Amino acid sequence: MSEESLVVYTAKICPFSQRVRIALEEAGAKYTNYEIDLTHKPDWYVTKVNPASKVPAIAFGGPATSPDSPSDQSIKLAESAVLVELVADLYPEAKLMPSSPIERAQARFFVEFVGCKLLPAFFAFVFKGAVGDPLKSVLDTIQQRLPRNSVFFGGDKPNIADISIAPFLARIRLQLKHDLGAFPEGEGLKLYEEVFEGEQFRVLREYTNALLARDSFKKTFDEVALLAKFKERLGHIRRAKSASPPPSQAGSTPPAIKAAS
Amino acid sequence: MSEESLVVYTAKICPFSQRVRIALEEAGAKYTNYEIDLTHKPDWYVTKVNPASKVPAIAFGGPATSPDSPSDQSIKLAESAVLVELVADLYPEAKLMPSSPIERAQARFFVEFVGCKLLPAFFAFVFKGAVGDPLKSVLDTIQQRLPRNSVFFGGDKPNIADISIAPFLARIRLQLKHDLGAFPEGEGLKLYEEVFEGEQFRVLREYTNALLARDSFKKTFDEVALLAKFKERLGHIRRAKSASPPPSQAGSTPPAIKAAS
Repeated sequence: MSEESLVVYTAKICPFSQRVRIALEEAGAKYTNYEIDLTHKPDWYVTKVNPASKVPAIAFGGPATSPDSPSDQSIKLAESAVLVELVADLYPEAKLMPSSPIERAQARFFVEFVGCKLLPAFFAFVFKGAVGDPLKSVLDTIQQRLPRNSVFFGGDKPNIADISIAPFLARIRLQLKHDLGAFPEGEGLKLYEEVFEGEQFRVLREYTNALLARDSFKKTFDEVALLAKFKERLGHIRRAKSASPPPSQAGSTPPAIKAAS
Repeated sequence: MSEESLVVYTAKICPFSQRVRIALEEAGAKYTNYEIDLTHKPDWYVTKVNPASKVPAIAFGGPATSPDSPSDQSIKLAESAVLVELVADLYPEAKLMPSSPIERAQARFFVEFVGCKLLPAFFAFVFKGAVGDPLKSVLDTIQQRLPRNSVFFGGDKPNIADISIAPFLARIRLQLKHDLGAFPEGEGLKLYEEVFEGEQFRVLREYTNALLARDSFKKTFDEVALLAKFKERLGHIRRAKSASPPPSQAGSTPPAIKAAS
């Protein structure tokens, strides 16, 4: 159990931020959460916390200061996968990492898979209006990899693999259910019914339900705020699409996503 | 020290593969290296080792078999960052990971930085013919982050941060020195002189020299084979450029790079 001060800079909208908060909650860590407004980032955030200007980031150790005036003596770290591993390392008694080298590698590989396969498929569908089949196919692969003899990869409690996918499953479910995306109207809801109501994805659905029922998840997920943000963002996307942007911009990622990692 | 069998599937051309081999060498691991011809991948590789069809991959444990007929009982793992951490985990006495959680996070963040910043800048310059300034700028940032009180991040011996950048520094140096890339003729050599001969990058150059002088590096780097491959690949790029491909393909990554991770 670490006694050093730990401030985590996050944004509610950002799934990468939520990963780190879930890890901290599951570890029972004492920490301060500071919400960064991604549309109006404070100057001190870039100069004193993360030069890359992205959330999440952690300021660790050093003298106690207000989160909005971080000490030069605290150590600043970024990148959600790095931060989740840091939390696991700082709180080994929480067992956020499996105990054997091979199982640790398998958990890390799953985290990589989420980042390299699920995210691009989700973002392409929701923000670029691509067809939903690749997303469905990745969700199917994920379902095949889910544990069959325990609720989570971590057994009764989530480990880093579970923590890394939870914010994305939640956002996929929410955006599809409310048909919020750059896809043609109705396509989101159609995919929602297939994935979150049909028999084919029963294992994935039960796994998602179990993850989203954790206190660590509920405490770090503000559905009302997210829905408002998604609706606002979708408005921008639909307006941009109807204004026929030049090809070089048509496929670009929206600013709020670029701001996160 | 692990007693299980370990086969690593790699390709000489592939910097991600070399990361894993350097880690295994630094750990003094007993392992079998199997070269995969990326231009003619054997069918069994995709079906029995890595469905993503990429190198590097590891087959761990299970009954002893020939590497080209891997057992269903061995565990297959992929993704170079995951595999380097696995080697560090399997051989803790080799101290490829720092001992404190914060230092481990800093090492992992450096690995992320190499993947997210150095690689895109290098690939853009060498394979897409972009201007060299962004690459120079990332190399400058990397130089600022290098250790000043020890040869390597790991002290006298490389740790995962050093291991992760070594294959890229070697390839950057080699391709620039031989002016091999999609950039205008002479631009590579110009950048080589600035970075690997000038005073501004002295710290980076000395660090590179120290890394490349390790037995672990020399044993896993075949300069003659690489030069031949680079020349062949450059021929393809220059022919493709002179044939004026459609815009959607102009910026695509060459197949050999897509095949690696």
